Amino acid sequence: MATKALFFDVFGTLVDWRGSIAREVRRLGLNIDGEAFADSWRGEYQGAMERVRSGGRGYVKLDILHRENLDRILPKFGLESMGEAERAALNLIWHRLDAWPDVAAGLLRLRPHFRLAPMSNGNISLMADLARHNDFIWDAILGAEVARDYKPKPEVYLTGARAFDLEPEACMMVAAHSSDLAAAAALGFKTAHIARPDEHGTGLGEAGPSVPVDYAARDISHLADMLEGERA
Amino acid sequence: MATKALFFDVFGTLVDWRGSIAREVRRLGLNIDGEAFADSWRGEYQGAMERVRSGGRGYVKLDILHRENLDRILPKFGLESMGEAERAALNLIWHRLDAWPDVAAGLLRLRPHFRLAPMSNGNISLMADLARHNDFIWDAILGAEVARDYKPKPEVYLTGARAFDLEPEACMMVAAHSSDLAAAAALGFKTAHIARPDEHGTGLGEAGPSVPVDYAARDISHLADMLEGERA
Repeated sequence: MATKALFFDVFGTLVDWRGSIAREVRRLGLNIDGEAFADSWRGEYQGAMERVRSGGRGYVKLDILHRENLDRILPKFGLESMGEAERAALNLIWHRLDAWPDVAAGLLRLRPHFRLAPMSNGNISLMADLARHNDFIWDAILGAEVARDYKPKPEVYLTGARAFDLEPEACMMVAAHSSDLAAAAALGFKTAHIARPDEHGTGLGEAGPSVPVDYAARDISHLADMLEGERA
Repeated sequence: MATKALFFDVFGTLVDWRGSIAREVRRLGLNIDGEAFADSWRGEYQGAMERVRSGGRGYVKLDILHRENLDRILPKFGLESMGEAERAALNLIWHRLDAWPDVAAGLLRLRPHFRLAPMSNGNISLMADLARHNDFIWDAILGAEVARDYKPKPEVYLTGARAFDLEPEACMMVAAHSSDLAAAAALGFKTAHIARPDEHGTGLGEAGPSVPVDYAARDISHLADMLEGERA
């Protein structure tokens, strides 16, 4: 079945969360190891979502989980005295993460041929702010908040496909994480892996997929090349 | 409180559903009165949504209601023999309605200053297609499908405000229908009325609001003028 829509993982796949947080921490003048701080914050991510996925807690948007996780890690960095306003501002770092350099141009090339949407665990306002910050143009913002659950729960992917009136087989999930692609593939989605070998630090990311995928691309522009090649 | 986001009614306010459907009916060579057909189809709209709003039926997207309504009216126009594929294609007219001439340029002027989203009873794919067809750039597609209910139910407006992390008082509803604005205002939204005096035919539309509003504009560009004037 012809692919009609591409759904994108965002954190790690389209934006460099670790480098962006480290840069912002330095810009704010916090006297801490920015990369360690980013890793620690992101380290709380899966556990916080798992409480929602398992039904132990109703859906709350990722901004709220990020804030709870921030409160949890601040003492580890000697920042337990940070005030409420500063914490709230710091939490918004996630709304202005910088894209990897290939992304905006790659998405522009894909846009004439496919519906494009983020399929992220980030909430709608977070995705809208990242789009403005990085010049992404989306057809809609789909993902966790629309489905009111978190990936890799099937309903998140399926809600996205249904929002575009598409069978899963007409959808492609694009991600730098094999686990995300495996979950989408199990539902019938096509899959494209994007190499982000330095996501968690030099050499600490997925340079290639560890599961079968339909496409394995170096970056978004390379994926556009591959999909253009098929049409040619 | 400063306005941070503008939410737009779409059918009638941004797009000329009646003229567009009539033009498409003529283009398709159907030997019927296009305007009467558009009026009849739209005439089934509120009743179909009311079954969902009242709880008599679970949420189904507007494309499905439009299709059921189409099946209902075809015999009135002698088209009861129309086949399934043709009905499905005809139903997609709603995905390519033309905007009123002021809209695309007006939205572009508003975009640097506010988050912009449709707040329509149309489903996500319908809104995404109208955006592509008319060069609208949205921050997100909000409205009925995200809330899984239909305006003027309060939850639809409130789900939109929450998606953007905003209090209702920081949101403005923009519509050519006083009833839509009254429902939003009751929740704390600011309101802007757009004159569409010919929505239902010459002289058969709201030339002005019949309820108190914060702004009464001739069109979207005029609204941009008024909001610019306040910032000046």
